[in-house]
Amino acid sequence: MQILRNAAVVVMDADSAGYRVDRGQAIAMDGGLIAWAGADSDLPGEYADAPSTDLGGRVVTPGLVDCHTHIVFGGDRAREFEMRLEGASYEEIARAGGGILSSVRDTRAADEETLLARALPRVDHLLAEGVTTLEIKSGYGLDVDSELKMLRVAREIGRQRPVNVITTWLAAHALPPEYSDRRAAYISDVVIAGMERAHAEGLIDAVDGFCEGIAFSVDEMQQVFDHAAKLGLRIKLHAEQLSDLGGAAMAARNGAISADHLEFLGQDGIDAMAEHGTVAVLLPGAYYTLRETQLPPIQPLRDAGVPIALATDCNPGTSPVTSILLTMNMGATLFRMTPAECLRGVTLNGARALGLSDRGRIAPGLRADLAVWDIAHPAELSYRVGFNPLYARILGGTHV
Amino acid sequence: MQILRNAAVVVMDADSAGYRVDRGQAIAMDGGLIAWAGADSDLPGEYADAPSTDLGGRVVTPGLVDCHTHIVFGGDRAREFEMRLEGASYEEIARAGGGILSSVRDTRAADEETLLARALPRVDHLLAEGVTTLEIKSGYGLDVDSELKMLRVAREIGRQRPVNVITTWLAAHALPPEYSDRRAAYISDVVIAGMERAHAEGLIDAVDGFCEGIAFSVDEMQQVFDHAAKLGLRIKLHAEQLSDLGGAAMAARNGAISADHLEFLGQDGIDAMAEHGTVAVLLPGAYYTLRETQLPPIQPLRDAGVPIALATDCNPGTSPVTSILLTMNMGATLFRMTPAECLRGVTLNGARALGLSDRGRIAPGLRADLAVWDIAHPAELSYRVGFNPLYARILGGTHV
Ligand SMILES: [Zn+2]
Ligand SMILES: [Zn+2]
Repeated sequence: MQILRNAAVVVMDADSAGYRVDRGQAIAMDGGLIAWAGADSDLPGEYADAPSTDLGGRVVTPGLVDCHTHIVFGGDRAREFEMRLEGASYEEIARAGGGILSSVRDTRAADEETLLARALPRVDHLLAEGVTTLEIKSGYGLDVDSELKMLRVAREIGRQRPVNVITTWLAAHALPPEYSDRRAAYISDVVIAGMERAHAEGLIDAVDGFCEGIAFSVDEMQQVFDHAAKLGLRIKLHAEQLSDLGGAAMAARNGAISADHLEFLGQDGIDAMAEHGTVAVLLPGAYYTLRETQLPPIQPLRDAGVPIALATDCNPGTSPVTSILLTMNMGATLFRMTPAECLRGVTLNGARALGLSDRGRIAPGLRADLAVWDIAHPAELSYRVGFNPLYARILGGTHV
Repeated sequence: MQILRNAAVVVMDADSAGYRVDRGQAIAMDGGLIAWAGADSDLPGEYADAPSTDLGGRVVTPGLVDCHTHIVFGGDRAREFEMRLEGASYEEIARAGGGILSSVRDTRAADEETLLARALPRVDHLLAEGVTTLEIKSGYGLDVDSELKMLRVAREIGRQRPVNVITTWLAAHALPPEYSDRRAAYISDVVIAGMERAHAEGLIDAVDGFCEGIAFSVDEMQQVFDHAAKLGLRIKLHAEQLSDLGGAAMAARNGAISADHLEFLGQDGIDAMAEHGTVAVLLPGAYYTLRETQLPPIQPLRDAGVPIALATDCNPGTSPVTSILLTMNMGATLFRMTPAECLRGVTLNGARALGLSDRGRIAPGLRADLAVWDIAHPAELSYRVGFNPLYARILGGTHV
């Protein structure tokens, strides 16, 4: 039992896009959960003798959720980034071993210890900004053993660091060269067979894919999702990032918890997502890094009542981003989302995008995952660029 | 006397835009300066017994220079940022007390202690990223006493934190409402009279202005620069941010050390800057925050041989940025500068933009201001988004 007192609690209602700040609040935490929340002066007598911390009026939000990352990978692509800016063509970069296949090569070559050691500083940067739940995808192994290796590292991150790690099977990320003329075999032998093994080993919480002309088709993803359904696994999809293939609508009809990217999402997809409660996960770091100009359909998503989440998409190629706060700023600056929408996107809606209803708001019965900030108003979290006002992080009721 | 050994030193030649990394290097520091730099194995015998630090092969760059900030100010503009995203018009925001005049009002109202306390966390964020020289402008006081107050706070920052602070007189930032029909009086009574007082009190290292339709004209700035010349003060100018008034060319002809922003700079301005050695200070954080689409003329600046610097422009309205590393990434991502150009922009050329030739490279006789990084290659500094791999910061030969 632990009480936080004198807090400015950011309250997000289920039925509006805004927030409000209630000052002079207390939060009682017990057994990892929020036991009670309300005005300091209303604190029930049963909590009167529990140890308490005075937060000095600081702002308290739910712990942040980064619901879409590829944070475990081998190598980095800094030199590729540099070559491109020095004028190298995509061909020259490919010849120099660049592109996603360089991450696949480096990930396959690295052992678990190396992958972990390289990922931890990136993870630590997110935790230092108040992240308490972190999704991590496979997808740079592209063979069964290497995909499992990535997910073991992801699970190990959750053991070595105070953060909840959610893992996602993304073998359908790219077609590796050894399968270039055997797409069906890749789907069955690696994506589906590996999914079964990973599931049996308890390594996956959901199944994802990259549905795009350069990756996998709607029909191929349907096959993958059919298998996920047999295993009782939740599904999500990288969809409509570069073109509108109808992936988001297909995923929604299959009950996907989220569809992610969505720059080219059309009204059909929006309607299907709204109907099936699929969360729109927007990734402004990739939009920024790729210098995209096609904005995701924010206003139509709002109008349809589709919940919008934001995530870093941390990955070595298209979003080498390890700041959830900067992601909030990019949501506001680039996507014109309000600070309230940005905060909801990395708390309540980020949790929903992972199928989690036990976190993301400050309310009795939910997990006591909280972030305490040295700010006057929650809008500062989205307004500042390259700044970290985190004062304390609380995971399952414990200061970490 | 102090020796750094086993360093990967980033070497920038005077006559090329690139860099190279020399591994296995040593740097001898004495009396705040670099006494010797070269291969570990060539370290002269006289340094053999000096205390040394093994850097384990880490990358060493010059300490970073943020050559354009407005980091001292009262209040913040987070709520204004939020109102705009919630759909408020500029009129509504002005009626709610927003815009630059809200920063003026809050800066005038704050005492030195408050301004200092609010600025230090922003400064600390920059120092944590390897900044060793920091420029700070006045310009939110717009009366003599308030402008002097800002600069006293700037100087105090340099006393309270291990960083070299360079101060700039920017009373010609905006016309305050009490002078709205007396522009000439503002120039003479505040900009020029205040400059003399600030100079007499040792508070200014250079004189700046905002030359723009919404601020001051070329003729008005010429008057200001004439006075700066009488006092022997260096000059620089915010120019061509929103339109091409010829400010950069005028400043260059007056011997300006830099012209800053420059999105609308034309070939005349570029030629004048090249002729007079005026540095182009680009501010991608403002470009990003304002969602500008007119890129500064990077290639013509390169072609003309104009040195390009990058800076945060940290300010509450148009660039609430406190990350010099993110500024480097924006220079690469948004302006397509190479990582070598970005690094040069926040070291050698940042120093030149402040008229400083005693820092910004790693060479004997220069200041021993260094940054040591946990990275494999300097391109990582520009490639990463929202990450800080600083391992150590050295100011005047001392680890700080
Ligand atoms: Zn992704
Ligand atoms: Zn400025």
